Amino acid sequence: MDSGIKDLIEKVKKGEVGVDEAMENLRNLPFEDLGFAKVDHHRPLRTGFPEVIFCSGKTPNEISKIVKSLKKSKVNILATKANEQIFKTIEKVAPKARYYPEAKIVVIEEKKAPQIGQILVITAGTSDIRVAEEAAITAEMMGSKVERLYDVGVAGIHRLLAYSEKLRAARVIIAVAGMEGALPSVVGGLVSCPVIAVPTNIGYGASFGGLAALLTMMNSCAPGVAVVNIDNGFGAGHIATLINQLGE
Amino acid sequence: MDSGIKDLIEKVKKGEVGVDEAMENLRNLPFEDLGFAKVDHHRPLRTGFPEVIFCSGKTPNEISKIVKSLKKSKVNILATKANEQIFKTIEKVAPKARYYPEAKIVVIEEKKAPQIGQILVITAGTSDIRVAEEAAITAEMMGSKVERLYDVGVAGIHRLLAYSEKLRAARVIIAVAGMEGALPSVVGGLVSCPVIAVPTNIGYGASFGGLAALLTMMNSCAPGVAVVNIDNGFGAGHIATLINQLGE
Amino acid sequence: MDSGIKDLIEKVKKGEVGVDEAMENLRNLPFEDLGFAKVDHHRPLRTGFPEVIFCSGKTPNEISKIVKSLKKSKVNILATKANEQIFKTIEKVAPKARYYPEAKIVVIEEKKAPQIGQILVITAGTSDIRVAEEAAITAEMMGSKVERLYDVGVAGIHRLLAYSEKLRAARVIIAVAGMEGALPSVVGGLVSCPVIAVPTNIGYGASFGGLAALLTMMNSCAPGVAVVNIDNGFGAGHIATLINQLGE
Amino acid sequence: MDSGIKDLIEKVKKGEVGVDEAMENLRNLPFEDLGFAKVDHHRPLRTGFPEVIFCSGKTPNEISKIVKSLKKSKVNILATKANEQIFKTIEKVAPKARYYPEAKIVVIEEKKAPQIGQILVITAGTSDIRVAEEAAITAEMMGSKVERLYDVGVAGIHRLLAYSEKLRAARVIIAVAGMEGALPSVVGGLVSCPVIAVPTNIGYGASFGGLAALLTMMNSCAPGVAVVNIDNGFGAGHIATLINQLGE
Amino acid sequence: MDSGIKDLIEKVKKGEVGVDEAMENLRNLPFEDLGFAKVDHHRPLRTGFPEVIFCSGKTPNEISKIVKSLKKSKVNILATKANEQIFKTIEKVAPKARYYPEAKIVVIEEKKAPQIGQILVITAGTSDIRVAEEAAITAEMMGSKVERLYDVGVAGIHRLLAYSEKLRAARVIIAVAGMEGALPSVVGGLVSCPVIAVPTNIGYGASFGGLAALLTMMNSCAPGVAVVNIDNGFGAGHIATLINQLGE
Amino acid sequence: MDSGIKDLIEKVKKGEVGVDEAMENLRNLPFEDLGFAKVDHHRPLRTGFPEVIFCSGKTPNEISKIVKSLKKSKVNILATKANEQIFKTIEKVAPKARYYPEAKIVVIEEKKAPQIGQILVITAGTSDIRVAEEAAITAEMMGSKVERLYDVGVAGIHRLLAYSEKLRAARVIIAVAGMEGALPSVVGGLVSCPVIAVPTNIGYGASFGGLAALLTMMNSCAPGVAVVNIDNGFGAGHIATLINQLGE
Amino acid sequence: MDSGIKDLIEKVKKGEVGVDEAMENLRNLPFEDLGFAKVDHHRPLRTGFPEVIFCSGKTPNEISKIVKSLKKSKVNILATKANEQIFKTIEKVAPKARYYPEAKIVVIEEKKAPQIGQILVITAGTSDIRVAEEAAITAEMMGSKVERLYDVGVAGIHRLLAYSEKLRAARVIIAVAGMEGALPSVVGGLVSCPVIAVPTNIGYGASFGGLAALLTMMNSCAPGVAVVNIDNGFGAGHIATLINQLGE
Amino acid sequence: MDSGIKDLIEKVKKGEVGVDEAMENLRNLPFEDLGFAKVDHHRPLRTGFPEVIFCSGKTPNEISKIVKSLKKSKVNILATKANEQIFKTIEKVAPKARYYPEAKIVVIEEKKAPQIGQILVITAGTSDIRVAEEAAITAEMMGSKVERLYDVGVAGIHRLLAYSEKLRAARVIIAVAGMEGALPSVVGGLVSCPVIAVPTNIGYGASFGGLAALLTMMNSCAPGVAVVNIDNGFGAGHIATLINQLGE
Repeated sequence: MDSGIKDLIEKVKKGEVGVDEAMENLRNLPFEDLGFAKVDHHRPLRTGFPEVIFCSGKTPNEISKIVKSLKKSKVNILATKANEQIFKTIEKVAPKARYYPEAKIVVIEEKKAPQIGQILVITAGTSDIRVAEEAAITAEMMGSKVERLYDVGVAGIHRLLAYSEKLRAARVIIAVAGMEGALPSVVGGLVSCPVIAVPTNIGYGASFGGLAALLTMMNSCAPGVAVVNIDNGFGAGHIATLINQLGE
Repeated sequence: MDSGIKDLIEKVKKGEVGVDEAMENLRNLPFEDLGFAKVDHHRPLRTGFPEVIFCSGKTPNEISKIVKSLKKSKVNILATKANEQIFKTIEKVAPKARYYPEAKIVVIEEKKAPQIGQILVITAGTSDIRVAEEAAITAEMMGSKVERLYDVGVAGIHRLLAYSEKLRAARVIIAVAGMEGALPSVVGGLVSCPVIAVPTNIGYGASFGGLAALLTMMNSCAPGVAVVNIDNGFGAGHIATLINQLGE
Repeated sequence: MDSGIKDLIEKVKKGEVGVDEAMENLRNLPFEDLGFAKVDHHRPLRTGFPEVIFCSGKTPNEISKIVKSLKKSKVNILATKANEQIFKTIEKVAPKARYYPEAKIVVIEEKKAPQIGQILVITAGTSDIRVAEEAAITAEMMGSKVERLYDVGVAGIHRLLAYSEKLRAARVIIAVAGMEGALPSVVGGLVSCPVIAVPTNIGYGASFGGLAALLTMMNSCAPGVAVVNIDNGFGAGHIATLINQLGE
Repeated sequence: MDSGIKDLIEKVKKGEVGVDEAMENLRNLPFEDLGFAKVDHHRPLRTGFPEVIFCSGKTPNEISKIVKSLKKSKVNILATKANEQIFKTIEKVAPKARYYPEAKIVVIEEKKAPQIGQILVITAGTSDIRVAEEAAITAEMMGSKVERLYDVGVAGIHRLLAYSEKLRAARVIIAVAGMEGALPSVVGGLVSCPVIAVPTNIGYGASFGGLAALLTMMNSCAPGVAVVNIDNGFGAGHIATLINQLGE
Repeated sequence: MDSGIKDLIEKVKKGEVGVDEAMENLRNLPFEDLGFAKVDHHRPLRTGFPEVIFCSGKTPNEISKIVKSLKKSKVNILATKANEQIFKTIEKVAPKARYYPEAKIVVIEEKKAPQIGQILVITAGTSDIRVAEEAAITAEMMGSKVERLYDVGVAGIHRLLAYSEKLRAARVIIAVAGMEGALPSVVGGLVSCPVIAVPTNIGYGASFGGLAALLTMMNSCAPGVAVVNIDNGFGAGHIATLINQLGE
Repeated sequence: MDSGIKDLIEKVKKGEVGVDEAMENLRNLPFEDLGFAKVDHHRPLRTGFPEVIFCSGKTPNEISKIVKSLKKSKVNILATKANEQIFKTIEKVAPKARYYPEAKIVVIEEKKAPQIGQILVITAGTSDIRVAEEAAITAEMMGSKVERLYDVGVAGIHRLLAYSEKLRAARVIIAVAGMEGALPSVVGGLVSCPVIAVPTNIGYGASFGGLAALLTMMNSCAPGVAVVNIDNGFGAGHIATLINQLGE
Repeated sequence: MDSGIKDLIEKVKKGEVGVDEAMENLRNLPFEDLGFAKVDHHRPLRTGFPEVIFCSGKTPNEISKIVKSLKKSKVNILATKANEQIFKTIEKVAPKARYYPEAKIVVIEEKKAPQIGQILVITAGTSDIRVAEEAAITAEMMGSKVERLYDVGVAGIHRLLAYSEKLRAARVIIAVAGMEGALPSVVGGLVSCPVIAVPTNIGYGASFGGLAALLTMMNSCAPGVAVVNIDNGFGAGHIATLINQLGE
Repeated sequence: MDSGIKDLIEKVKKGEVGVDEAMENLRNLPFEDLGFAKVDHHRPLRTGFPEVIFCSGKTPNEISKIVKSLKKSKVNILATKANEQIFKTIEKVAPKARYYPEAKIVVIEEKKAPQIGQILVITAGTSDIRVAEEAAITAEMMGSKVERLYDVGVAGIHRLLAYSEKLRAARVIIAVAGMEGALPSVVGGLVSCPVIAVPTNIGYGASFGGLAALLTMMNSCAPGVAVVNIDNGFGAGHIATLINQLGE
């Protein structure tokens, strides 16, 4: 932003831009105002990442308008927490759209992202896979190579240990677990790369919708572990990619 | 109330009213008893505000009877947390009724309220708009001029800063946010007018139905912020109007 | 801030200020960097309000340095949540300092604030007074006329009703209550001015350090009530003054 | 129980009952074993109260069998938390059954209970009535005279005060309130009879399903108040009757 | 209150009292304003109960002033949650004062209360006795005959059953328990008198300062049980006396 | 595992197995990788217990594949938290499958388990039976003899005491209770065998989905009690069998 | 108890015992009433276990009296949660008393208990040892052979796996862990004996005094795990011994 | 670990190592058993990181023994959550030890770590610095270059924006905040590097010891943010270094 301001000020100095026009420009920051949403066209251009639409709580109509606005910039688009019906609505304005039902993600891919580095996504159980897939597809769409390793929870520790080479090969690990959520603690003690822990709402009774797993991960006695929100596969895939890219 | 009692006592002294009648009158406070509800006919007359019906937990039949009772006083009426079906029921006894589906408000407007001062209603995201609209329409129906500014959450702080003039022009700001609910803290640091913060239940996982946003707002390190209940757009619009009117 | 930027840009246009210098100025925002604290010299000048130091978690040495830095601007200073020892430390660098032990506030008054409008501070019980005094002294130091009415909790409703004239005379009411915290709900139904509710940690057992009172106030069925943090007398006094000033 | 044992022992002494038979009898306590339920035939005979079936979590088939078993004793029967479908099932085996849809109670009245004393059931709002009716009908079926006074919440305190004579006439008051739940605190300060407080789940956001009202009532600063579970109208009606009967 | 108003109005009618004087009187409700506390002189006169001072959060100086004010009315006084130091302070202005260290109650007895009816105070364990004693002494000072039965928790159910005659002899039972707090549920099933349950903060770990016991008592499957706040012996003793007196 | 490694190493020494093959074998731990699930074929062989599928959060398709994989080992299979639809799906690939609708368990029994020892499963109420049945059938399928005793909650303590011989005959007791969950505390005091406590989500209001019962059981003042998750009948049946088998 | 009653009844039949005397005897259950405590002399005789005094919340004077009363029965005595001062008090009336400062247990050993079976007590960290020792000493005093294995938390899983033979040799394992409390889940997957999980309050921040570890253990995805209260070493040692004895 | 096993197996094959010796070696994993602690000598050698002692809950004597054991490996040592007294104890056995009182860290530096990359540690307020310093010193000791930027909370957003170049220069940012904890959300929106969020326990009332800040950070609407435990400066510094090193 600073450099944009500098350009502007230099133009003011040179008389190419008037004071009022400059003030106007300073205000015209790089987003489009749809009234109910401010669409940021520049962010994906700057970062090369897809633009993301968080679908929960938005009407299909609102999502449709946001997609249309974003499409002008020819960026890749990711719509998360999207159900079948939302996909259908998006498909009408963006026929290229693909749907990943397990991950509940709609993807509109304008240009293929590269697949660099190595992110390993692991789950404690089979039921955690939907969140893991949200993380994996997010990371892939942002340009990360992703390996998957599912159903290696700590109650059968030998299943996890059998894959210790895979664990050590990763640049960053996303560990997804519900119920008691102990997987990241054990993994954190086995590897020396960063571990992003994702609690899920899998469980019942005293799991309290994922709170138990969240607290477990927060209190992990293994260092090298940081946590994102319950079921936040997207957030895990995003930060894992930021970390993964540092390794290039 | 005191002045009414004084009048009564003076009439007793003058012999215009007997003791038992006075006692009766003292008891006949200005509400109508529908059995299941005590309808207060005098409050809107005193304040000039619309009478409000909180629809949650009431049957359409009960709401219908309350509307009929209130209509006698020719006051404006606001029915909040009202779904489509409730609107249909009200419409039968009050054909003038209008429905705002996003705000879930039914309005029966007997006489147009003035539009004074300036309340700015802002939201962090698109999904918070339904609560913001409840606040905005409440404030408008109570006689406030309302400006709206939506989708200016803190994760894209430049979107918010681009509107700093609007922020400063308000007499009172209603800041509506779910998820981490940080918007009121940032806004509170940018303006010197009162900020009414409204947490919403938008979010998932550790948002715990809006509790996370509520706690954030409660702990705001910016002064000038006070908080109403999760999703309580009505309450925010009401107190904001009380504050806004002080500026006349 | 915008107007400052406009001035600067006009000077750039006129050639009075160079591009690099302008960039430097844009960055030199009006605060002083003490390393461990960024002291904002301009805020009090802009608002006429005292500068405030929140003492919890700061060492006496840090507080002392902040006071010294602020004193240069000749503004009034308020140090909240300050114990006896902190007062002693401040007194050494600011001999004018006064201590209000009940409110736990240190005041350094450079020039007397005017006393305008009318804020009424009420408490449910005697034990809530310390928080009420924090609110009252904050409001007074910010320029508000403050009336106090203590120990009028709802369990003896006649004590409260006896003062209904006082309640109606206020432009804004600060209602402070611990235990079940019902006072703001009742007061909100009696008056038509804004009510700022302050829960306190007074109580035991299921009061959970003020949580019970906080939830009560959040769920107030009387409109016109907004809530600040438990024991946050300062925040209540601050926003009440912002509201009170609108009435001038 | 003791006196029954005494009788038995005396019979053993007199040789009327053998040791093994006595042992058997000691074990044959006064309930019938339906396998999935132990039906207590003697309790209602002892107390004169109706037998109560708590329907939540029981299948219609189970309820039907319990009703059939209880009917043998010719006692009055109360089925609480009963929906329309459960009523239909009961009606088939007990044609006398009456349904109170608001209170969600099915009543099978074998002989009319007397109506003694005076219990006053009050609610803060209209939405709290369903719980109040559960209390009122329970108390009536147990033999109490019940007066109802609904929608007298603390946000319009004059509505409550207008009925202070009614409040004072009661032997015991059941105060039902959701949202902030402040009604019992105010009532507790106005009367000198016991107040049974019933929180309801009416509210939204930070009411947390009635927890806010429950905590408010627990922390009541008025003495003379005790609390039952959220929405437990039955429990309130039961203990209120026990108290009411002491006054005969 | 109504009857007082009626007298006044009759005097106004007769010309014995002027309008302004009447208005003044209506406002002069029966309490004394100490500034930090409103002392209610009439309540104990009306009820015959002692006046009560809740000492937590009050300074010894404030307590001392309240005691002096109350002493004018020659009523019995109860100061609860009072430590040794508070007792010493009270003793100076009220030499008759007695201290019950276990119950943490100071008593100033102007005239002996009668001892009527029968309240049974029971505890689950030895550590709950301090709360039980607060209840017992409160009830005795309010005029109830009190029987004590301590350390009869449900883990040794035969200890409780051994006293079933005592349980049945009571007009009302106060059941005090910490840890899992199951005592009131069992007792509620054994007796047909009202049971006031008092959770205590005895326990550790998942007792969460008495929350576990509180929830247990709230969810009691035995009817006839109502609950007061954690450690609220006073409240239990008070409402038990109100109930006990109905039996005369 | 160790002995397996020893065998392997001995074979390496003897030259029967090459280094790479050994490494491969060390990695080829006894599970089959279905991609979304790692099926452990050796565990049931080792323990003689059935293999268990926890159905919550798994699609019928996934469950079907797991069943097919497990069937190869000719072990007994238990599918818990299985609804009608899941049963139908399993039945297609395993026609022998039986469904226990109350326990929500599907059983595929390849060879009858012995019925040794004595586990007593008791419930506080009728509504707790579904969880109790999950425990009972699990235990039976694992080879335990199971006795059932239902609806013996503490509010009618004589119902429980009437069965004290049954209680004393058990090698281990599973005590299932919702609402206030006091049953294990009382039972723990009556017997000297281990008691496994299972809280259920039966209740309403302040039962908070079984949390109240869970906390009660955690704080049990009777020793000899340990607790499993809310509604975890399977876990209770499993550990009870481990304990029961020690008695052989 | 039943057999005692049978004896009694037979004596009544034979005329050896009169009716009133029998009634008296039925009431004279085997405990001594110290007023503040009911001391059960028969339990240890029946079970062979030591009698246990839970010292929290009891005064040294009360503990001293209970010790004196118990000593008459010549049983072993265990005083838990006992600090240095309590030990000193006990020592005066029972010179044989030994103190285990880490476990905070006082032991008065009248006759040496046998050491049978095998209980393995393991901890995740060094800080959990104090709770583990409470469990270990309790189990030893109750007659169990105890093996200790400390500081084998899951963050260094190889430390735990190195001892897998020890894990498999145990008849029952007590797994003690604070922070994220994942140890029992991993151990439960490695062994086929019952695991008693003990959460500790070790940790900070989001460990919430052991709540995080408690929830983790409750939600353990490994079967064969049951949980006792936070820091409840005694309870774990007790139930582990009950289980251990079954193996004889 | 695998490669170590491979070496061993190759030696077995070659006959250089016997089977029993191999088994022994497999068990002799690289830690030393102090009984109360298993000290891992190989981890720091492998990673080049210092060995870390978490001091909370350990006695000075235990810490001293661990330090002595670790010193043999000549690694750098970090003792966290260490008070003055612990430092004194360590100093006796390791005279080189340095103490950072604000960070509560003791450092024993055997060889200087390199200072690579760029970690930026920022705080919202002055009171958060102690946690920030724990993070900063941990990162420095692990080989990271660390920049500090303190007191740039969101209530004065211009203070933060003034340093946007510093924010953009970092490879990873550690954002430390108490109270409402909104800093990471705003920073996450300004930068495209990973942000490690650290809630602190600074605040009062509804901050609930850092829970409010923790929930805020969990729900951050800015992607690129992951969270560690309240006050866990060490964990933040550790994972930030793992990430920072990827950038080399």
